[in-house]
Amino acid sequence: MPDDRPLIILRPAPQERDRIFAPDTLARLHREFEVVDLDTDLSDAALLAALPRAFAVVGQPDLPADRLAAAPALRAIVNVEGNFFPNIDYPTAFAQGIRVLGCGSAYSQAVAEYALGLALDAARGISREDHAARSGREKYVSESNVGAILLRGADVGVIGFGNLGRSLHALLAPFHTNVRVYDPWLPPAVLTDAGVLPSSLEETLSRSTFVFVFATATPESAHLLDAAKLALLPDGARLILVSRAAVVDYDALLAELTAGRIVAGIDVWPVEPIPADSPFRALDTVILSGHRAGGIEQAFHTIGEMVCDDLELMKAGLPPVRLQAAAPELVGRYRNRPVG
Amino acid sequence: MPDDRPLIILRPAPQERDRIFAPDTLARLHREFEVVDLDTDLSDAALLAALPRAFAVVGQPDLPADRLAAAPALRAIVNVEGNFFPNIDYPTAFAQGIRVLGCGSAYSQAVAEYALGLALDAARGISREDHAARSGREKYVSESNVGAILLRGADVGVIGFGNLGRSLHALLAPFHTNVRVYDPWLPPAVLTDAGVLPSSLEETLSRSTFVFVFATATPESAHLLDAAKLALLPDGARLILVSRAAVVDYDALLAELTAGRIVAGIDVWPVEPIPADSPFRALDTVILSGHRAGGIEQAFHTIGEMVCDDLELMKAGLPPVRLQAAAPELVGRYRNRPVG
Amino acid sequence: MPDDRPLIILRPAPQERDRIFAPDTLARLHREFEVVDLDTDLSDAALLAALPRAFAVVGQPDLPADRLAAAPALRAIVNVEGNFFPNIDYPTAFAQGIRVLGCGSAYSQAVAEYALGLALDAARGISREDHAARSGREKYVSESNVGAILLRGADVGVIGFGNLGRSLHALLAPFHTNVRVYDPWLPPAVLTDAGVLPSSLEETLSRSTFVFVFATATPESAHLLDAAKLALLPDGARLILVSRAAVVDYDALLAELTAGRIVAGIDVWPVEPIPADSPFRALDTVILSGHRAGGIEQAFHTIGEMVCDDLELMKAGLPPVRLQAAAPELVGRYRNRPVG
Amino acid sequence: MPDDRPLIILRPAPQERDRIFAPDTLARLHREFEVVDLDTDLSDAALLAALPRAFAVVGQPDLPADRLAAAPALRAIVNVEGNFFPNIDYPTAFAQGIRVLGCGSAYSQAVAEYALGLALDAARGISREDHAARSGREKYVSESNVGAILLRGADVGVIGFGNLGRSLHALLAPFHTNVRVYDPWLPPAVLTDAGVLPSSLEETLSRSTFVFVFATATPESAHLLDAAKLALLPDGARLILVSRAAVVDYDALLAELTAGRIVAGIDVWPVEPIPADSPFRALDTVILSGHRAGGIEQAFHTIGEMVCDDLELMKAGLPPVRLQAAAPELVGRYRNRPVG
Repeated sequence: MPDDRPLIILRPAPQERDRIFAPDTLARLHREFEVVDLDTDLSDAALLAALPRAFAVVGQPDLPADRLAAAPALRAIVNVEGNFFPNIDYPTAFAQGIRVLGCGSAYSQAVAEYALGLALDAARGISREDHAARSGREKYVSESNVGAILLRGADVGVIGFGNLGRSLHALLAPFHTNVRVYDPWLPPAVLTDAGVLPSSLEETLSRSTFVFVFATATPESAHLLDAAKLALLPDGARLILVSRAAVVDYDALLAELTAGRIVAGIDVWPVEPIPADSPFRALDTVILSGHRAGGIEQAFHTIGEMVCDDLELMKAGLPPVRLQAAAPELVGRYRNRPVG
Repeated sequence: MPDDRPLIILRPAPQERDRIFAPDTLARLHREFEVVDLDTDLSDAALLAALPRAFAVVGQPDLPADRLAAAPALRAIVNVEGNFFPNIDYPTAFAQGIRVLGCGSAYSQAVAEYALGLALDAARGISREDHAARSGREKYVSESNVGAILLRGADVGVIGFGNLGRSLHALLAPFHTNVRVYDPWLPPAVLTDAGVLPSSLEETLSRSTFVFVFATATPESAHLLDAAKLALLPDGARLILVSRAAVVDYDALLAELTAGRIVAGIDVWPVEPIPADSPFRALDTVILSGHRAGGIEQAFHTIGEMVCDDLELMKAGLPPVRLQAAAPELVGRYRNRPVG
Repeated sequence: MPDDRPLIILRPAPQERDRIFAPDTLARLHREFEVVDLDTDLSDAALLAALPRAFAVVGQPDLPADRLAAAPALRAIVNVEGNFFPNIDYPTAFAQGIRVLGCGSAYSQAVAEYALGLALDAARGISREDHAARSGREKYVSESNVGAILLRGADVGVIGFGNLGRSLHALLAPFHTNVRVYDPWLPPAVLTDAGVLPSSLEETLSRSTFVFVFATATPESAHLLDAAKLALLPDGARLILVSRAAVVDYDALLAELTAGRIVAGIDVWPVEPIPADSPFRALDTVILSGHRAGGIEQAFHTIGEMVCDDLELMKAGLPPVRLQAAAPELVGRYRNRPVG
Repeated sequence: MPDDRPLIILRPAPQERDRIFAPDTLARLHREFEVVDLDTDLSDAALLAALPRAFAVVGQPDLPADRLAAAPALRAIVNVEGNFFPNIDYPTAFAQGIRVLGCGSAYSQAVAEYALGLALDAARGISREDHAARSGREKYVSESNVGAILLRGADVGVIGFGNLGRSLHALLAPFHTNVRVYDPWLPPAVLTDAGVLPSSLEETLSRSTFVFVFATATPESAHLLDAAKLALLPDGARLILVSRAAVVDYDALLAELTAGRIVAGIDVWPVEPIPADSPFRALDTVILSGHRAGGIEQAFHTIGEMVCDDLELMKAGLPPVRLQAAAPELVGRYRNRPVG
């Protein structure tokens, strides 16, 4: 009896199959689909052999126009890295009615919780005092709390109101903060509907005690936060950088932190690993973090579940609802580095 | 012209006047009341001289029955330390219709935010990795996130559902956690109305990934969390201790942390400062903190504002609404150390 | 063997025992306490015979000083009608350390849900169109929606921010309304902490599209909303009156409604039943309701549960937490009519 | 100087231009675009003349393949009625990279508020008692509240979790309800992420005291709620029907309501207007409503604003964010009648 289940090409590299598919999720994928598993076989031959019957490709292989032409049954290409790259001939894919889907939202909760953790740490000096205690220099009660502030009722700025910004905003609800958002891709009504104040970048920076940066790296956003913009931050501001290093001038940031004018929690860096002799490593005004905000097991496993859920919906003739469709207008713009 | 404003005795020691009254709040107090300022004069003579005309005492001076008898106009005694002590003859005060008021709730938001910060840190290793980066040992992305977990959707236990527990619970709302509460002073309906599950101590410990301890120190709660109770915590649990050291057996806690079975954020200690040779100082499974959760400037200034607001209401013949009335049943029970 | 359970006098009139105690709650009360049931025996003799051993009185019998003197074991008097009356010698009770407790909060959720229902009805004409359809006069779609407005994003005024106002405010949260509150018994910080704007009565009326009246009837609040105040309401305002008739000038209100300038949902009336020939009965601009906002079975049964919970706590030496303590400053002021 | 603004064909029939575009929104549209206004000119000639240069079509004109072929610059077709009809050759449109967008979400808040209003009315008998009072038959307090229930803590069922279901769910948050959802187009994780219980239709009906019907009319959902399904509702259930009449067997519903077994708020009808002799008109167990849930001015004006916002984004090379893209899988399925 022929296998009439739709065929899926699974070639997640540089993601790893077992990181994104928990065992039961992988079993489910195999139950619902015929899976051509190319987790370790990155050869063109294997990919090309499977394309003619493929219903979906899960991964980031090169798919120029001629390969798409060889895949008449293809309905979905699922990027499992978190960002869209120029690996696909997008116009051709869209013209063929192929859905190009991304898993970026799988990381949102992890990043938002981490960003809030960094903000509370920056507000209260948690890691600073923990570090001090390890060499017997900790202070107590009021003496340890000079400059400590509440998040409740604070002015908060959010730069970028996509998945990450929205997830962080949801966590702020019980703090009764006053949130300004700068996002040049959204009309004001989307922001006011969400309960935040649409603002310019300048106003967002100059009027916020806490600033969260979630900007996508594009040619336009390179060094969006340069020395002049960072200088707008009020004294004592807390700056939380979890995405993307390219949008900040780190030399200017170092100057502000060295002067003790602001405090920052930094998870993304222009060069990773952070150079051994980086002056950031010695500052008391920074929380150092190695690109850790999103990549936790629960986030990775969510990707596998999203893939299963949406491919099963498509198999049943329904639209996907968990993965996010690539916007034709944006697929050429991103300059993000892969998470992973 | 005689001063017909009610007289207030201000003797906040061991609190300090200027820590709890911001300049404008103090000016407001002086505008509405005749203030006998005993911030630095702790003599009996000054206190006794002012008592006969006193409308309110702000502070913790000794007020046995004979002194209360000498204060026929006294309507309120406001404790500004956060805990009630045996400095007052409470039955006599209550019989005289004197309101005994406390300011404990002024610290709630600061403690709740700090507790959440410790929890997110314990969940994700923020201070651990910051500390590692300062000696060039930090890890990146997935490698740094072994054991990292989300707060979202987690099982959470709260021990003690007074001001602190409720304030923390409010902050958890957007995380969609499943909250169990152990509080032997509350009937189940109060907890179910608040949207949490009333639970035994055992169930709270054994079924929660995050446990927050906000228990008041009483004779009954001494070493409430002993070795047997701590052993109930699931592997990988995160324990957040912000109040009170007396309720935990720290030797048993040290054993669990040394074994790497759980992770803890600890703000209160049986002896403060933490002894220089304390083995806690070297553990990677603990976030070290020196009794810093509540004592920040905004909390202290809130006390002064609460005092002004409520004394003004009482002056106008209305009941106080911000400070909390001492419960006759409980004033004799507390064994808390002062925050200060 | 003598009964060593504390004795409770149950004399709820004009409430009824079986209305406030569901069978299992009543059984629980009998299990924990010795109950002298005076549900139908309103004689002085029965009351006086039980007082000397009474731990608590549940109900509103007259308790002047001499009767209180005859009740040395009395710890609590629980009013089960919703308002405090001059049936007790309050100063004597307080001096004896007797807690005087009320059950008003038991009605809060029922009243808040009803008030929201009236507001949505007034906003959208639900009962008006239902009534029209019963005589074949209903309209459809846009034609039926002239003047219909959203609650979302609206300016809302709340007069009185006690149990009722707070419960209503909680229900408004997802509507992202802009709430102004007038409450002369509360300092501004209590209101700003709750996320509402402290306002004068004039501003609350003139700037709100929806106005909810929850004012307690006192000598000061009589006809608080007179013709001049009602004239401040913007055209098309929705006025929701669920408590108390005494605070509104109904002649002035009738004039506004007859003119079609505002719409009202009215649950309380200066005379109940509403006179047969009341002109209110014929107006399309009013939703007519017969003092029904609070008195539903779930609210009544909550009273019984609150009584049981709190008396059991007091029996165990703990303070009550569900019933509300009478404020000495306020017990003499209320002029409310009983719910019942 | 040639007009280099993109050209928009505005042919909203059977919608009306001035109902969806407030004056300032229309002015804004004219400022940003060259507008060919066919509000009253429904001729083919006018449409065909404008198509070759059209950037967007706002409305529901017939757009078969040959007309799309004649519109090489077309980037967007915006349906402003709320439902997708077979007026477009969808596959051809998608293959040309044309976005087909709908405005359904503009009605969500209005429908959700109305549905909540109906539910509170059904729970408490607001319109029933208002109607009674108009003929002097109203009852008071407890006597009027037989069968009245709280929404707080209730079991709630939601059938269909699209825009409407989600908007209603948001309004339920402060009621602490227990929500079950039946939606065969969504995987369980979408529902659990939203904080509701994924359920079968049978469980949703049999375990819910309040049931909200938001099901889209498709061939599969015709008479989804037939006699057998309605019989699953618990005694005293409240059924809120705001979308779509086709999914319910109204004869079976009439039988349940006549028997007094359930109470319903009904806004959609198999035949509108409701026949003059419909037995529904005389029932006390129903709230009668003439397809009024969504069509209010604020909802209509939101459509115009969404159109402006998204076409401006597309003009700037960005993806639309307010209107919803038609799913290729679903455009052929809908059987909804137009709102309007």
